[in-house]
Amino acid sequence: MYFSKSFIPILKNNPSEAKIKSHQLMLRTGMIKQSSSGIYSWLPLGFKVMKKIEKIVREEQDRIGAQEILMPTIQSSDIWKESGRYEDYGEEMLRIKDRQNREMLYGPTNEELVTEIFRSSTKSYKSLPQLLYHIQWKFRDELRPRFGIMRCREFYMKDAYSFDISDEEALFSYNKFFLSYLKTFKRLELSAIPMAADTGPIGGNLSHEFIILADTGESKIYTDKRIFDVEYEKTTLEKKSLENLRNKYDKFYSVTDDKFNKSDFENSVNENNRLVTKGIEVGHIFYFGDKYSKPMKASVDYQGKKIFVKMGSYGVGVSRLVGAIIEAKYKDKDEIMKWPLSVSPFDCAVIPLVNKNDDTNLLKAIKIYEYMKSKNIDVIIDDTEENFSSKIKKFNLLGVPYQIMIGKKSENDLIEFKEIGSDSKYLKIDKIIELISNKKK
Amino acid sequence: MYFSKSFIPILKNNPSEAKIKSHQLMLRTGMIKQSSSGIYSWLPLGFKVMKKIEKIVREEQDRIGAQEILMPTIQSSDIWKESGRYEDYGEEMLRIKDRQNREMLYGPTNEELVTEIFRSSTKSYKSLPQLLYHIQWKFRDELRPRFGIMRCREFYMKDAYSFDISDEEALFSYNKFFLSYLKTFKRLELSAIPMAADTGPIGGNLSHEFIILADTGESKIYTDKRIFDVEYEKTTLEKKSLENLRNKYDKFYSVTDDKFNKSDFENSVNENNRLVTKGIEVGHIFYFGDKYSKPMKASVDYQGKKIFVKMGSYGVGVSRLVGAIIEAKYKDKDEIMKWPLSVSPFDCAVIPLVNKNDDTNLLKAIKIYEYMKSKNIDVIIDDTEENFSSKIKKFNLLGVPYQIMIGKKSENDLIEFKEIGSDSKYLKIDKIIELISNKKK
Repeated sequence: MYFSKSFIPILKNNPSEAKIKSHQLMLRTGMIKQSSSGIYSWLPLGFKVMKKIEKIVREEQDRIGAQEILMPTIQSSDIWKESGRYEDYGEEMLRIKDRQNREMLYGPTNEELVTEIFRSSTKSYKSLPQLLYHIQWKFRDELRPRFGIMRCREFYMKDAYSFDISDEEALFSYNKFFLSYLKTFKRLELSAIPMAADTGPIGGNLSHEFIILADTGESKIYTDKRIFDVEYEKTTLEKKSLENLRNKYDKFYSVTDDKFNKSDFENSVNENNRLVTKGIEVGHIFYFGDKYSKPMKASVDYQGKKIFVKMGSYGVGVSRLVGAIIEAKYKDKDEIMKWPLSVSPFDCAVIPLVNKNDDTNLLKAIKIYEYMKSKNIDVIIDDTEENFSSKIKKFNLLGVPYQIMIGKKSENDLIEFKEIGSDSKYLKIDKIIELISNKKK
Repeated sequence: MYFSKSFIPILKNNPSEAKIKSHQLMLRTGMIKQSSSGIYSWLPLGFKVMKKIEKIVREEQDRIGAQEILMPTIQSSDIWKESGRYEDYGEEMLRIKDRQNREMLYGPTNEELVTEIFRSSTKSYKSLPQLLYHIQWKFRDELRPRFGIMRCREFYMKDAYSFDISDEEALFSYNKFFLSYLKTFKRLELSAIPMAADTGPIGGNLSHEFIILADTGESKIYTDKRIFDVEYEKTTLEKKSLENLRNKYDKFYSVTDDKFNKSDFENSVNENNRLVTKGIEVGHIFYFGDKYSKPMKASVDYQGKKIFVKMGSYGVGVSRLVGAIIEAKYKDKDEIMKWPLSVSPFDCAVIPLVNKNDDTNLLKAIKIYEYMKSKNIDVIIDDTEENFSSKIKKFNLLGVPYQIMIGKKSENDLIEFKEIGSDSKYLKIDKIIELISNKKK
């Protein structure tokens, strides 16, 4: 991508309406643009990051055997009346009347609709377990949307649903998602900790939030530091192995504000291990048994009886993760962002010092750019006439993790190469390509 | 994928509410499920096909240098009042009041929003041309939704927008999309013909619909047969080459009902070449100059003046294409569907004859299945105990283009292999894999 042809509208300064760093950086680097209160358009840079996050989320869902579907954004109120949540949900639900005056709504979540799909499709316990997920836009009509895409109204979410014959099997499904979430966040280079959580309007009696640490987080958290050292890499998708994993986490006190109890915390966590800080919720999983299947009569035949299926639901905020990664990775004091390579909008930036009357550097840069593209490196080249130092400043915000500088000293075939936040090295182009390709694996 | 674990709810018979073959087949093979009038959920089989179509559409947009963004589904009425379309659009626009009583709407199209994004981001003519597209859910509140996803209310669409400095440059952008659409539909194994069309509520004075022939189509078309022989394969993305292509098409009379004129048709088309038939619209492109940029003040600086940018818009119905392909490929008399390999939910089906007390065939089938998967063939295996002939019947509807049958005669290493609609061959497994892999390229 040539920067001069790209649609990346950069702002010179932090926009005054943005109070947290993800909101600031996303507006400043033209990742998003607000279209109305709490509603954003995703411009090419932000879109690319979000799509890469989506892909990782999807792959980890597929890996545990979940099947992807896609439910519509607009739902009928009928099924919400069946479950009893239509009145309960309050003003956050965007209610709509269509031209025939039918009551519709923009789905804030999909327990009802997926239960309806399940009950009309599945009759026998032999088809269980069934794990279904979709990645779709949701709408919650927040009274005061703020913090950019972190607390907005229209947001992109992966929500999965499990259907099982018994509590025991349902717990097995729950634990599969528990593990898959740990792996998902790890691939995004986030260290997310699972915390016992309230179930809120979803319901049920078992729930975990996955929280990443960030000073600007909205949730206050109280935890035992040692929870960060729990190892899950060797856990397999076997029932026993997953139970062991859950036990390892459950040993450590780890809760959000809602569930905090001072004496419990002090009794169960040695002073040296106490960590009180802030975090951002990036995932939330629930087990709620037959809360929806019973009123909506979603049952399967089992040994001559009709059994209401046991269900759980599992959410990851895909659009929110874009902001969460920035909150975790952006050093706003130095104005340096570094995207994890797995979700970076580009692998490498080629930044030539371009003089008006001398195109030597630009031509050299284009040659490098073309060569890297031919080797499957996704490169952006800054072909503009902007001065060199403001180019560097701009790219430090754009956060492409690798930079190639073609400046004054560029004479032989050793190229100035830099990982953002580290010192420059002088390497041959093939060495640079090898280095980036290895990191991409 | 094991059929027994899949979420593919098959119906035994054609559902009575479905009047056209795409609607029948999609319900029967569990590709979609209606959730309310004109609103559908996409189940795994349908979802996979739609995603593959989306990928092809995306690749062909990227190839002409269009950049992908993502605009929200919910828009403010303000920008529609600026363009003057808020009142005009009528009842097909789903109008919404949020909790603060603000007038919102579910976007039926995005000319206004993309113009707003452009005007606030781009100041100089040097950034032109700019081609932006997104693939997003739209809503049109049809009075009488029908024909399944062919005329529904919530639908998935690619819409692109071009911004240029002059009519001449804008026409160049228009022609790039013209070519890219021909290539897109070709990759979907559809022969789509461009036809001069009315511009309707989008506006402007130049427009083409891309129509595929189908008996069940909603549009009546009048065309010169020779238009099917126009060659576009050698056309490049140069201005001159694209103009030549347009001229080659413009030579042949080819219109829909709206533009039909009997004497024009008879005068310009030799009797032998006249074709009067029905078709389905799968794409629609428009050039409308400054229709939106002028009232919305989207201008760029050029030689000391402010010039309103010249715009066009370019739509492809991604969800509709799923139905259109079925209309074109499904032989409902024989109950045989064959998906183009490029969008088929699976590359190959492995269908063993399974006896209750003898798992020889099933084990052999599983071995073949695993081996093919290891060679990157996407396979579905029917591991159920359903009888062999109803399995075959089912898979003829599912439309996976290649089938491997493990039946009675299965004794040596020659495997019964079939392309749907052709005769069986007996081949070694590696030969089959080679054959499918070559077709996938």
